[in-house]
Amino acid sequence: MSTQRPGEDSLIARFFAPLAAEGGLGLKDDAACLSPTPGHDLVLTTDALVETVHFLPGDPAGTIARKALGVNVSDLAAKGADPKGFLLSLALPEDWTVGWLEAFATGLGEAARDFSCPLLGGDTVKARGALTLSVTAIGEVPAGRMVRRTTARPGDLICVTGTIGDAALGLRLRSSPFWATALSPAERDFLADRYLNPRPRHRLAHAIRDNAHAAMDVSDGLAGDLAKMLRVSGVSGIVETGDVPLSGAARKAVDADPDLLDRVMTGGDDYEILCTVPERNLDRLRKEADTVGIGLSVIGRVVPGSDPPVFRTGGIERRYDVGSFSHF
Amino acid sequence: MSTQRPGEDSLIARFFAPLAAEGGLGLKDDAACLSPTPGHDLVLTTDALVETVHFLPGDPAGTIARKALGVNVSDLAAKGADPKGFLLSLALPEDWTVGWLEAFATGLGEAARDFSCPLLGGDTVKARGALTLSVTAIGEVPAGRMVRRTTARPGDLICVTGTIGDAALGLRLRSSPFWATALSPAERDFLADRYLNPRPRHRLAHAIRDNAHAAMDVSDGLAGDLAKMLRVSGVSGIVETGDVPLSGAARKAVDADPDLLDRVMTGGDDYEILCTVPERNLDRLRKEADTVGIGLSVIGRVVPGSDPPVFRTGGIERRYDVGSFSHF
Repeated sequence: MSTQRPGEDSLIARFFAPLAAEGGLGLKDDAACLSPTPGHDLVLTTDALVETVHFLPGDPAGTIARKALGVNVSDLAAKGADPKGFLLSLALPEDWTVGWLEAFATGLGEAARDFSCPLLGGDTVKARGALTLSVTAIGEVPAGRMVRRTTARPGDLICVTGTIGDAALGLRLRSSPFWATALSPAERDFLADRYLNPRPRHRLAHAIRDNAHAAMDVSDGLAGDLAKMLRVSGVSGIVETGDVPLSGAARKAVDADPDLLDRVMTGGDDYEILCTVPERNLDRLRKEADTVGIGLSVIGRVVPGSDPPVFRTGGIERRYDVGSFSHF
Repeated sequence: MSTQRPGEDSLIARFFAPLAAEGGLGLKDDAACLSPTPGHDLVLTTDALVETVHFLPGDPAGTIARKALGVNVSDLAAKGADPKGFLLSLALPEDWTVGWLEAFATGLGEAARDFSCPLLGGDTVKARGALTLSVTAIGEVPAGRMVRRTTARPGDLICVTGTIGDAALGLRLRSSPFWATALSPAERDFLADRYLNPRPRHRLAHAIRDNAHAAMDVSDGLAGDLAKMLRVSGVSGIVETGDVPLSGAARKAVDADPDLLDRVMTGGDDYEILCTVPERNLDRLRKEADTVGIGLSVIGRVVPGSDPPVFRTGGIERRYDVGSFSHF
């Protein structure tokens, strides 16, 4: 009977085996087997998602699956890596249903195809509490070519893809839907979707690898993540907040309430690529970004020093308190 | 102040960065970088642990860490793989303390050294509910040499390492401590420890690779796991329960209460290696097991057929209901 909850083995066979890559061995083994491309390094990243912390109760199952994979593929993209596959660890709450899992697996399969990052293996257990997922994604770069976070250099241009702040505003819209009355329904939907559906910039991975000195993805907020990258690189930076790319909806919200600019800069969940680029490479990077249809903006410059980066708005300068962006 | 709870970044720097392998880049990047040995395949496995499901509230933090890594290294060992490293995803409950995390990191570091499986990266998030961990372990085998679960052949001997059932009896002792009055305190401690401290058989990985046709580790119970391995191999098997290796403590418990034999056969958490071996390789495998001080027992034989394996005790034959060993 299709609505009866199956055991773990039949659950894997029914929902996850159809998504498995060749290296996943049809999920019939305890482990996956991957043959690395000769002359390449592996890039490995893991990110966990917890209900109410990283997504909201009632979010569509397929969207949760896509986000869990997307935030990991975003990490690979920022490192200049091509996705090879992923493993999923899924802790299901007591009340899971066959319908929910079916939608989850469908969303996961679509995301795996969209991001060219197939399922290799996983583990499914009972949660004690809310739905909790952990994805480990594996990517590949030519040997020695992983783009580091620690290698920004003075004089580099600070660049960011896409637009910043949409997801943070989208999350706020979901918790207080009567906020930002200036926005149209379509603009609200756009922002909400940006929180739910990160768009990893994997199509820009090669261009980042070829042109950036340092890169990371923006997950904990532009200000905090930039401060982190510059600190581990032993440098500082200056950002013009007016150059930080905003979507039409975010621009409208900030114009109506300028205090929202802080939320845009620090809110997180952007999953854009933040990178530092030597000036001589900018045109080439821009051109490659254009080719794959991803926006690229120069928002500032790396400078010598050890202070957190300065954010300039008109004549006003501020440094954000980086510690406040931590999850703990 | 050492008892104040640090933010995520300082938590990583303080507790986890000291454990990081070279490929972990001091945990200062978003991703780990691993250079595979030329001519080798990667073996990847992930296992999640949830409080009350896979360990008990109040279990020592260092022991939980060791178990989380150990069960994954056990998977690698059964595949014939040498550990290369692991990623940890840690969802911490609201009430975590610095002392707990310190003990956790210490135990993790010791286990990583004991198993030659260093930390490569991870993610730390807030749990919504109980402590939940997921480890992804990465191992290596010469290309094409991963030992599969799907390749048992009729005529193979069914072998198992160490002893079976200790962990299941140990878990039962913890939930009903007045059970099994026949056991001495030392015997009770031994069984309880076998639940808490799996001993992955990684030192036998090469011998498994060189001598076994098929292998997996015993995590969900000998009967269920053997049925699984034989089913995906398209074969059946006969096991003599009298040949299944029991520790002195388990033997004493079963002698006092013969009904416990079912629990021994189906209980799980053994983390021994179950493998099928062509008769001509048995002596060599035995010798190599002796060399590394790991017991090896022949418990039965693979036969043609598609039924679940038969377990013979004296004149009585039975087939266990495999579905009942699932976690769902």
